[in-house]
Amino acid sequence: MTRDADGAAPLVPPPGETPVVVLVNPQLADNIGATARAMANGGLFHLRLVAPRDGWPQPRAWAAASGADRILDAATLHPTLEDALADCHRVLATCPRPRHVVVPVLTAREAARELRDVAARELRAALLFGPERAGLTAEDLARADTLVRFPLNPDFNSLNLAQAVMVMSYEWCTAEDATPPRAFQTHGTRIATKGELDNFMGHLVAELDASGFLRNAPKRAGMVRNLRHWFGRGEVTEQELRTLHGVVAELSRGRMVRGRAEPAAPHEAED
Amino acid sequence: MTRDADGAAPLVPPPGETPVVVLVNPQLADNIGATARAMANGGLFHLRLVAPRDGWPQPRAWAAASGADRILDAATLHPTLEDALADCHRVLATCPRPRHVVVPVLTAREAARELRDVAARELRAALLFGPERAGLTAEDLARADTLVRFPLNPDFNSLNLAQAVMVMSYEWCTAEDATPPRAFQTHGTRIATKGELDNFMGHLVAELDASGFLRNAPKRAGMVRNLRHWFGRGEVTEQELRTLHGVVAELSRGRMVRGRAEPAAPHEAED
Repeated sequence: MTRDADGAAPLVPPPGETPVVVLVNPQLADNIGATARAMANGGLFHLRLVAPRDGWPQPRAWAAASGADRILDAATLHPTLEDALADCHRVLATCPRPRHVVVPVLTAREAARELRDVAARELRAALLFGPERAGLTAEDLARADTLVRFPLNPDFNSLNLAQAVMVMSYEWCTAEDATPPRAFQTHGTRIATKGELDNFMGHLVAELDASGFLRNAPKRAGMVRNLRHWFGRGEVTEQELRTLHGVVAELSRGRMVRGRAEPAAPHEAED
Repeated sequence: MTRDADGAAPLVPPPGETPVVVLVNPQLADNIGATARAMANGGLFHLRLVAPRDGWPQPRAWAAASGADRILDAATLHPTLEDALADCHRVLATCPRPRHVVVPVLTAREAARELRDVAARELRAALLFGPERAGLTAEDLARADTLVRFPLNPDFNSLNLAQAVMVMSYEWCTAEDATPPRAFQTHGTRIATKGELDNFMGHLVAELDASGFLRNAPKRAGMVRNLRHWFGRGEVTEQELRTLHGVVAELSRGRMVRGRAEPAAPHEAED
């Protein structure tokens, strides 16, 4: 049983129907292994191989799978694409430049939504990827009811096989992901309130008044405002604010020890 | 100058600021090459290498880049991460499990939106990726103002380096992509109208009436409805409809030639 670096849960087939990844005539065992790894990353499990060029199994695939061994162990070998698709209800084929086809063409993201819909209906979908060099043939594509296009750089849109699997696997996974797009972790601390920030600003301004930094009366309000803008620009945690209080106190102590022997030069506010 | 398989436009730096990809202590030249290819796929161009384990340049990287040579040719070598980031305004670091950090954590998709915003302001963003085995150190992460998490399979979330670059490159590209999620190409033909479909249904039903297939009067309406449901389920092109007219005519001709010597058995409608 394969565990990830943290000894997390073993890699097991996900419950219910999940899309089957079908590699048609894959050439390189490294790519088959990298495909298994990419599938594991996205939570896909079922791999079917149609007539791999160099036969099957190939040890190099396991070496390239970085622990996604169970996907390779469970992979099935098929003499023809027809055989690999016989028990599937939907067939989506990746195709960089669909031409002369009269089937729907979806973006990878939309295809992932469709795959989720199909899986929710307990139907089995297959996701076809062609051989590294040539891609799927017109005959292969005729077995697909839907094509998938990756909207990538039109000047350089030939994806490595495992990279193409990664994009679909990633989209499959994110199609039902509930991670908030933006988070802010505050391990053991919390975001400071505006009151706490005002308290700090009071401390800072009092010390700056005492030092003479704010002695230019007409510019004082603007300088304080500039400082407030800077300290208020991003969220500050309560712990960071305590550290900042300490920094102000520490720097002020040095000044007081010197007994104002060297008063600070008046600074110009930047307006 | 590198051209893709179709002899499309050469791979040139995109105009304006685009994010810089920074690989920190990459171990394998293959991964550096695969990174360049993934960058080209997504329209990224600027690659910086911080102290690659096996030195630089390495011919294997060019072999793995599948034509993204210009990105490798233009890649710059840096002794330290500090050096690589000196002219950058924003630093995003990929991190599978952000811990004990007090910076914003974005999903890959949200990070791509942020990268587009930064680029639109003519600021330079860096996207950091750590070495294959260990990932970025806490010291490296402290140089990032934002972390990026890929919401993938929590039981298997260790991505290959070039796969991680692929996901970010893909998200960068799709963040401004206007491809309709769902298209239906009808090269040289067009979607048939409901009137054309009705015309075909009329042809079919007339032939089925003539053949005796619909002779069961109480079930006739239901059978016609079932056929209409089937023919109406997906969009039909005008060309496909002409072919179907031909099929009906051809099959009917056979029947007429036989002169109804073998009348068809009455079929049951499936209700």
